Amino acid sequence: MDNSTAAIGMFDSGLGGLTVMHQLVQALPNEEVIYFGDTARLPYGDKSPETIIRYSIENAIFLIEQKIKMLVVACSTATSHALDHLQQTFNIPIIGAIEPGAEQATKTSKNERIAVLGTKGTISSRSYEKALLARNPKAYVLPIACPLFVPLVEEHFVKHPAAQLIVHEYLKVIKDHRIDTLILGCTHYPLLKNLIAAEVGEHITIIDSAAACATYAASLLSDKGLLRHSSEVVQHRYFVSDDPHRFQMLGREFLGLPIDHVHLK
Amino acid sequence: MDNSTAAIGMFDSGLGGLTVMHQLVQALPNEEVIYFGDTARLPYGDKSPETIIRYSIENAIFLIEQKIKMLVVACSTATSHALDHLQQTFNIPIIGAIEPGAEQATKTSKNERIAVLGTKGTISSRSYEKALLARNPKAYVLPIACPLFVPLVEEHFVKHPAAQLIVHEYLKVIKDHRIDTLILGCTHYPLLKNLIAAEVGEHITIIDSAAACATYAASLLSDKGLLRHSSEVVQHRYFVSDDPHRFQMLGREFLGLPIDHVHLK
Repeated sequence: MDNSTAAIGMFDSGLGGLTVMHQLVQALPNEEVIYFGDTARLPYGDKSPETIIRYSIENAIFLIEQKIKMLVVACSTATSHALDHLQQTFNIPIIGAIEPGAEQATKTSKNERIAVLGTKGTISSRSYEKALLARNPKAYVLPIACPLFVPLVEEHFVKHPAAQLIVHEYLKVIKDHRIDTLILGCTHYPLLKNLIAAEVGEHITIIDSAAACATYAASLLSDKGLLRHSSEVVQHRYFVSDDPHRFQMLGREFLGLPIDHVHLK
Repeated sequence: MDNSTAAIGMFDSGLGGLTVMHQLVQALPNEEVIYFGDTARLPYGDKSPETIIRYSIENAIFLIEQKIKMLVVACSTATSHALDHLQQTFNIPIIGAIEPGAEQATKTSKNERIAVLGTKGTISSRSYEKALLARNPKAYVLPIACPLFVPLVEEHFVKHPAAQLIVHEYLKVIKDHRIDTLILGCTHYPLLKNLIAAEVGEHITIIDSAAACATYAASLLSDKGLLRHSSEVVQHRYFVSDDPHRFQMLGREFLGLPIDHVHLK
């Protein structure tokens, strides 16, 4: 059977993964995406590894039932705790939100000193640290948990002076560590990129892990001969576990495209 | 059977209900409390009514199985959407976090102009508005959703200048409405009371809905002859659906007492 016409499945705890989808559909305009946002149980960032593994497996089963050719775990917290489990359990290519950003940061950093911003769950899992050290054991990694960034983005406070103060509070430690590369290790953080760039200054290169993840997904599909070449109109599908209306309203800002219909799972 | 020695059951989506428990154990030091924090599924504030009803019924069943004489829904969002369902379903006294605060605000306000602060869920349910208008149809009610307050409290930003800016952003509208009474309509908000009081000024009386709820629970137990008169040492019990350690660490600040052991449900 030719799988190449099947869709790419993608899940996140909520809206954040839409920044990965945004990058993916820009890179691969012929591909269809089935996106699942687990909005009834968000956020994942401060839940335990066991709970996140359970939720991730349930989400993967739901998407695989929709017939997908690849699964993108578009959520750093779920990737941190559950990617290995998912790859061992299911028989399709499954990629996470962490390795691609770590790879790009390793190639970018000149002084081998890299900061990683993420949710509490991502940071305490040390997944970025492990991925960076596996690539360069001499790397110095500065992990910074930024738990207020997701609510600030979700509440449209990204241009508010309070967001600037909170960005400064979390990131002021960076200047003491001679960092030259910084990873946005959460799919919500690209919406704060301008504030973060202004805070850390031009000498630090910012790696957007959503963009890195999308680039990696595209190259993997190509390697496996799974790219869709059909010129039929692409029809993405969106599912959530709660409140389709809110997802539809807010999702546009993350995706950069209108979302016409959202199904309740 | 004499039920008076049984414990009082209490649930919230997480830690916030501990501010109600704090008030309750101060008022009734002989009572035992069994507290359930649904930390695997928090926050409830932005989930749909159907989901919140389902979660609330599951939480109530769990507590009733532990043998309780009264159930306190120590969460404004769950009260808004699920209190009626719970009262119709279960055969013990069940009180919510909304009516007691509405009652106290109605008695307090001289100019009949009352502001209500709450999560998105509480505000969009219009529960406080309905409770206030049922008591005084001439009341003018100003509802204000403050979705960033809970994360600010949970992340210990209550003394940070960013919290002050966010309090100002949400509450600046109050000065145009000649409000004389303001309800803290979420169990997390008492921890922001000082900032809120400084923002709105001394001419506005702040009603702490956690304290009002505890006072009402005490009077209802007394009316029903259910007060515990035993002088045995009181042993509260704590259950959560995720991450007992985090609950134990952060809970102390909400409860004002050390929490010695937290069980995973």
